[in-house]
Amino acid sequence: MRIGLFTGTFDPFTIGHKSIADRALPLFDKLIIAVALSNSKHTAKEMEERVDNIKSIFQGIDNVEVKPYSDLTIDMAKREGAKFIVRGVRSVNDFEYEREQADINHRLSGIETVLLFSDPNLSGVSSSMVRELQSFGKDVSEFLPKKD
Amino acid sequence: MRIGLFTGTFDPFTIGHKSIADRALPLFDKLIIAVALSNSKHTAKEMEERVDNIKSIFQGIDNVEVKPYSDLTIDMAKREGAKFIVRGVRSVNDFEYEREQADINHRLSGIETVLLFSDPNLSGVSSSMVRELQSFGKDVSEFLPKKD
Amino acid sequence: MRIGLFTGTFDPFTIGHKSIADRALPLFDKLIIAVALSNSKHTAKEMEERVDNIKSIFQGIDNVEVKPYSDLTIDMAKREGAKFIVRGVRSVNDFEYEREQADINHRLSGIETVLLFSDPNLSGVSSSMVRELQSFGKDVSEFLPKKD
Amino acid sequence: MRIGLFTGTFDPFTIGHKSIADRALPLFDKLIIAVALSNSKHTAKEMEERVDNIKSIFQGIDNVEVKPYSDLTIDMAKREGAKFIVRGVRSVNDFEYEREQADINHRLSGIETVLLFSDPNLSGVSSSMVRELQSFGKDVSEFLPKKD
Amino acid sequence: MRIGLFTGTFDPFTIGHKSIADRALPLFDKLIIAVALSNSKHTAKEMEERVDNIKSIFQGIDNVEVKPYSDLTIDMAKREGAKFIVRGVRSVNDFEYEREQADINHRLSGIETVLLFSDPNLSGVSSSMVRELQSFGKDVSEFLPKKD
Amino acid sequence: MRIGLFTGTFDPFTIGHKSIADRALPLFDKLIIAVALSNSKHTAKEMEERVDNIKSIFQGIDNVEVKPYSDLTIDMAKREGAKFIVRGVRSVNDFEYEREQADINHRLSGIETVLLFSDPNLSGVSSSMVRELQSFGKDVSEFLPKKD
Repeated sequence: MRIGLFTGTFDPFTIGHKSIADRALPLFDKLIIAVALSNSKHTAKEMEERVDNIKSIFQGIDNVEVKPYSDLTIDMAKREGAKFIVRGVRSVNDFEYEREQADINHRLSGIETVLLFSDPNLSGVSSSMVRELQSFGKDVSEFLPKKD
Repeated sequence: MRIGLFTGTFDPFTIGHKSIADRALPLFDKLIIAVALSNSKHTAKEMEERVDNIKSIFQGIDNVEVKPYSDLTIDMAKREGAKFIVRGVRSVNDFEYEREQADINHRLSGIETVLLFSDPNLSGVSSSMVRELQSFGKDVSEFLPKKD
Repeated sequence: MRIGLFTGTFDPFTIGHKSIADRALPLFDKLIIAVALSNSKHTAKEMEERVDNIKSIFQGIDNVEVKPYSDLTIDMAKREGAKFIVRGVRSVNDFEYEREQADINHRLSGIETVLLFSDPNLSGVSSSMVRELQSFGKDVSEFLPKKD
Repeated sequence: MRIGLFTGTFDPFTIGHKSIADRALPLFDKLIIAVALSNSKHTAKEMEERVDNIKSIFQGIDNVEVKPYSDLTIDMAKREGAKFIVRGVRSVNDFEYEREQADINHRLSGIETVLLFSDPNLSGVSSSMVRELQSFGKDVSEFLPKKD
Repeated sequence: MRIGLFTGTFDPFTIGHKSIADRALPLFDKLIIAVALSNSKHTAKEMEERVDNIKSIFQGIDNVEVKPYSDLTIDMAKREGAKFIVRGVRSVNDFEYEREQADINHRLSGIETVLLFSDPNLSGVSSSMVRELQSFGKDVSEFLPKKD
Repeated sequence: MRIGLFTGTFDPFTIGHKSIADRALPLFDKLIIAVALSNSKHTAKEMEERVDNIKSIFQGIDNVEVKPYSDLTIDMAKREGAKFIVRGVRSVNDFEYEREQADINHRLSGIETVLLFSDPNLSGVSSSMVRELQSFGKDVSEFLPKKD
């Protein structure tokens, strides 16, 4: 069984993330959306809500699992039996960062990183942009996936 | 059956290409190494030799096929039932080129492009570099995969 | 009167170019679409058709002019009284090229270069891509602007 | 009336910013230098001084206005009737950042972003560099515009 | 005597830094490894240990000196009589950052920056990556130079 | 004796190349300006003139030699006893190209590549730009070094 691990903080999970997950799904028998959590920045309740929100987006899609983790990505991948980490790339800056991460992850664990392009129309949509708009009281619903 | 199409001119097929093929293999049930040929630059005999050479490198590996093509990559993909094009990326220049190609291919056909990183140690190995070394009479065997 | 010079070979003029022209129009009192022609590559008839085609796209839009030129861009700009060269950028490769051109043009003539972003959805659309698709007998009408 | 909004934190306003403003001026009937302020980092007095300092640099130039704002850039643009945001770009990193911002701003408001190149000689001059030099007690007057 | 100043925070000094120092050594009569220290982030004891650790790596190599500094790099260079700052570059992001720093340093002091490429195999090894692995309790000894 | 090899086609040798040579000179006991020649593109007389022109620029500077070569750069370096190849970088595109070349050269010969930044003011000056201006009958003397 081919298992892919789509990792991120997903704070929040945007239509850009949804687009990558949709593109990654046909590549794998199971796609695990692995939500990186950090105790220092968020309360336990906020983290639970973030995971629950992503679960509701993929409700009814059998081969998607949503799971939080707070250790190294390669440890999460090993624990889940995933041989591939999935990442979306939008820009050259993303690319350079992913290359460094992928090199180290491959070196430490043999786990491969698979890059998928996001939809060009969504290339400006990022979690930090959504958070900034929210902080100014803007409606950001057009950047967030509809729940099933 | 998941079929990946690893495309290139492979003139010649280097250890960098071999590294990408090896990394792509576990992702697919069948990996087709699709050799883009151009009548204008090469004789029929040269093109046949290029394809045969790559076949000999993957001899005995059941889920690899080597096939020439001379039309659009997306047409080759459709003909072979491949839903994914596989490409290796080494540099930011590669990345920008692949993004444009992937956008157009997705738009025209819905076929997805999967980027894999080449081994960092091989990031300087390109077909054009090998050809240049050959033109100066250098031994390039260390840059070419061993045949089985 | 603010005059902008939108320069390119436009071989062919794509929906990407159209998008830049539309975005540039409100910035200027007159926008001149300056078609760079090279005698060595094309016949006089081909060049005339290219210019006529762009003219037909902007028919009825009063503040757009379409004019061929075959000397330096800054000389064309001076002849037309344009103080600004307009260019669309899609990628980092475009950006670096434009920076070098803009530096030299400013140094030689004081003429400023104004960069506009193309629509992200069109970032993969280039003249060379359209020509390649055409050479394989594909219908490229979705990448070409509709004539008025 | 064409109104351009040249936005930034301008902390401090350097000769690089001055160079962009000078290049932007002929493009617009009015150029508003919009100083983004954040309550969390600075006292009211510091912010007032920053705005006053920029005002004194452009004293006597009729079509320049200097105004602080603390909401979204597109809201500031709408309030002022500006259809164009002006930004200077020096490097590839700047370019990628501006592309994402411009995409989102265009999508949310239809407001266009106009990129101008800074003088190549000033490409290393940034506010953060000036602040760092100041923190080590260096004279930074050569990086700051002369007041009229 | 040609003196080179290899600067960094080196927190920690990795095999990537060691590779740059080894490549820089033949260029200079003396190579000073200049460890940038910041009082705000570290205790005096931590900083002393960092310097001592690097000293032990280069023990017995006569033309290497290891020295801490906490002012501007160009001031450290002048104090030591170094006309060249040495930096390793791994990625495009590194490159853009170094170009800005080098421009300013040259402008302020005439001191030249010399870029060396790190070993491609080590291009993913950075101090921040090592610190992150350490924070998760991983063994990072393969990324740290052996002491003599 | 430290010998540096500053390589290029130098067609023509611009003030940008002169700036790199001037910055490289203090690093080496001898700087060899190695002019890469290609029989296919130029007559013997044109190549001789190109070399002679560069010799006249450095007339009277004792530790500079100007020499043509038409084989691999690393073979030229070995023949001259140079352990370092010197290259100027202006842009991200240059950087990626130089990284690949440097990796291969280091791998094949152990010879190190040293990157120096060109003067930011000259970052738009390239041989191809000068040749283009010349082809349009422009005076390019401001981009060419004065002869001694």
